[in-house]
Amino acid sequence: MDKALFEELKKIYKDDILYKKEDVYPYAYDTSPNPDEIILPEFVIYPTNSKQVSQTVLLCKKFNISLIPRGAGTCHCGGCRVKNRAIVLHFSKMDKILEINKEDLTMKVQPNAVIKKINEEAEKLNLFFPPDPSNLAVSTIGGAAALSSGGPRTFKYGSTKDYIINLEVVLADGKIIKTSTDVAKNVTGYNLTSLFVGSEGTLGIITELTLRLIPKPQTRLVTLAYFDDLVEATSAVNNIINSGFTPATLDLLDKNTITTIEKFNPCGLLCDKEAVLLIELDGFRESLDIECKKVLKILKSSNAAQIIQAQNEEENEKIWRARRSSFAAVTKLRPNVITEDVVVPRSKIVPLVRGIQEICTKYNILVCIMGHAGDGNIHPNFALDLSDEKEKENFKKAKDELFALAIKLGGCLSGEHGIGYEKKKYLKDALDNGALEYMEKIKHLFDPQNIVNPNKMF
Amino acid sequence: MDKALFEELKKIYKDDILYKKEDVYPYAYDTSPNPDEIILPEFVIYPTNSKQVSQTVLLCKKFNISLIPRGAGTCHCGGCRVKNRAIVLHFSKMDKILEINKEDLTMKVQPNAVIKKINEEAEKLNLFFPPDPSNLAVSTIGGAAALSSGGPRTFKYGSTKDYIINLEVVLADGKIIKTSTDVAKNVTGYNLTSLFVGSEGTLGIITELTLRLIPKPQTRLVTLAYFDDLVEATSAVNNIINSGFTPATLDLLDKNTITTIEKFNPCGLLCDKEAVLLIELDGFRESLDIECKKVLKILKSSNAAQIIQAQNEEENEKIWRARRSSFAAVTKLRPNVITEDVVVPRSKIVPLVRGIQEICTKYNILVCIMGHAGDGNIHPNFALDLSDEKEKENFKKAKDELFALAIKLGGCLSGEHGIGYEKKKYLKDALDNGALEYMEKIKHLFDPQNIVNPNKMF
Repeated sequence: MDKALFEELKKIYKDDILYKKEDVYPYAYDTSPNPDEIILPEFVIYPTNSKQVSQTVLLCKKFNISLIPRGAGTCHCGGCRVKNRAIVLHFSKMDKILEINKEDLTMKVQPNAVIKKINEEAEKLNLFFPPDPSNLAVSTIGGAAALSSGGPRTFKYGSTKDYIINLEVVLADGKIIKTSTDVAKNVTGYNLTSLFVGSEGTLGIITELTLRLIPKPQTRLVTLAYFDDLVEATSAVNNIINSGFTPATLDLLDKNTITTIEKFNPCGLLCDKEAVLLIELDGFRESLDIECKKVLKILKSSNAAQIIQAQNEEENEKIWRARRSSFAAVTKLRPNVITEDVVVPRSKIVPLVRGIQEICTKYNILVCIMGHAGDGNIHPNFALDLSDEKEKENFKKAKDELFALAIKLGGCLSGEHGIGYEKKKYLKDALDNGALEYMEKIKHLFDPQNIVNPNKMF
Repeated sequence: MDKALFEELKKIYKDDILYKKEDVYPYAYDTSPNPDEIILPEFVIYPTNSKQVSQTVLLCKKFNISLIPRGAGTCHCGGCRVKNRAIVLHFSKMDKILEINKEDLTMKVQPNAVIKKINEEAEKLNLFFPPDPSNLAVSTIGGAAALSSGGPRTFKYGSTKDYIINLEVVLADGKIIKTSTDVAKNVTGYNLTSLFVGSEGTLGIITELTLRLIPKPQTRLVTLAYFDDLVEATSAVNNIINSGFTPATLDLLDKNTITTIEKFNPCGLLCDKEAVLLIELDGFRESLDIECKKVLKILKSSNAAQIIQAQNEEENEKIWRARRSSFAAVTKLRPNVITEDVVVPRSKIVPLVRGIQEICTKYNILVCIMGHAGDGNIHPNFALDLSDEKEKENFKKAKDELFALAIKLGGCLSGEHGIGYEKKKYLKDALDNGALEYMEKIKHLFDPQNIVNPNKMF
């Protein structure tokens, strides 16, 4: 332990600093399985304001130690994993909803505000914050901003980037800046807000966010449509969209996913079909009744083998509970689950899903595939035993082939989970070389000493 | 004229180069009145592909001459004005719609594709490109991307930035890069696309764009609601939104604007009311009928003095023609019209409009105010005679006070017209100093020799 640094940190955080091995251990990794040796952070600190964050950044520069910001750590790609000598900055004491303005449709929050709480507070004023990552009960807005998290509603509503209008950021030089002004429509200067959103904490540390809210849809109706064939399911998605509908959700679950949910959480899903679509329409009650009937017709003419339509909010919620339990269900199949996240143009979903199934057959890996069909954003959940060296090796190869396939199909490495530590080696294949070169230059411009969240993305 | 440069340009463009005074004159300025001495570009060139653009950039570096990209030049802020020794690059030969993909909801276009044409081509496939700047019949997508142009539909649909998913850009070092991949949902690396959109051609030259399209709304219904009082009009906007509605358009026109339209283009507008709201709802026919009735109720209970609801598309179009003629009508009042563009939090529209009126009374300037009330984005159209030195001087002061007011009210310098040359002096007051510092650093990173569109924004 660096005693001099410890003394300096004490001036800022008093006794509220972790440094014992057993205390800092949980801060060494995130949700993603860590195949490497664990590296412990030297200290864990809990700032209560951006000034403390700024002071800490300057200390890190002085003592040449990395600073890794984190919230709940629900990242699937090692985005807050410790990879070298580092201080972990945990935002648990900056978790407040500071202000909601019903007339301006804005909400000011601190980075550790939990997304579910944000949703609940917005709903009290009949407002709506659409992004809803699967783990919204724990995941924080700081992490969602770092990765521009999405969730099942992005086809209609977009992802986190579309709901952040201004950020307070502590830069690697210690400056505390505002990226914009608290207005939704703004072309005054470069769009720094969008540069920081999705930058995974590598350009600076977000300490306050102004969110854009929208009027809350009055109600929603969820439909499940089963198909004997994946091609029919994706055609149905096209038919719905090409008839002028923009459902909030157009999710796709494959047979393995349905069967696994039903096995561990029996809720009446049909396990003999190749694919199911979960379609959520939202809006005003009367309009929805009319539109749902039209969507039913489209599903029938698209060869849906069976259609189940929720009749009320209770039935909506029952379907969503099943859908949201998919990841948890897969975790019960084998000791480890790795969820991946690729995105392709929507017309390429069938070759992507078929390709993933072929790769997994080849390497004898159990995979449950689901995704946001409207966005071409597919999540294969791989059920593994990583203590089995052969299986670990096979998965490595399967993963390489998965990303090569997504890129070959005109897609990319991530729609909503980010790059983090786990996927950075694929970046040079996924991005234009010149674009990658300038991204690295931007990182260097903002953080020449490579202090904030190093070893991530690049 | 630089003969050596001319010889080099000829190798790329053969005889297709303008250099005579009378030929290059129209390329010295854009729509915005130019109060300064005209500086002519040395050459005007018409590339047909990005390779030529790249070669030209390298020549500009070698000969240390600026390169100003432009399309139709409908910019209101001197964004393509020539301010020093420069080549103007006109995109008129790169105006093609290259590809539409109905399944992927994407369209690939060249920078000079006209927005109206993009809309028409999308509509043929029942798809929709929402951004619609007032001059969409001539304005090009390259310019719209440079400024993230909006239009009356941004409250529901967002602006150009929300519909661009990938760009080909020629950088100032001659590199031709792709900022992303042709997928709408993507967090692979930094969001370079959003950095270039709205950067006004100062970071590189956009040579190809992939647009995101959405399903076309089946129909629309336009309502005009007159109010005796501005406060009542803006309260009505809040009441509509807080009842869960997201109209495509929520435009506000003041008495001077209504009167001026009616004077030059009689169409039955009521000229004795302080403000009128133009509300457009869109969606499925049956849903719309139900929702329009609800909005009518809200307008009545919000004290609307008179409500006129279009009954069919012909009547919708009639109202829109009147609304779209507002700028042209104002131009008939005095020799010059300068349209400004400020944005404030929606709760600050009343103090902003009242403040503008006070400023104009003080300086004896005729102003017609309109704007996108849903976004807090207000356009005062100043009718002037700039050949009158006193009036010119007064307008200068009024303009300074206008931007100071917008900033004081928590707003910013532009919602959709950009900064260009005209507003750059206000940037230091409008932006956080640290943010501005890093914007300038980003400009220097991409264009250290200050070749592409210099003297704009900074």
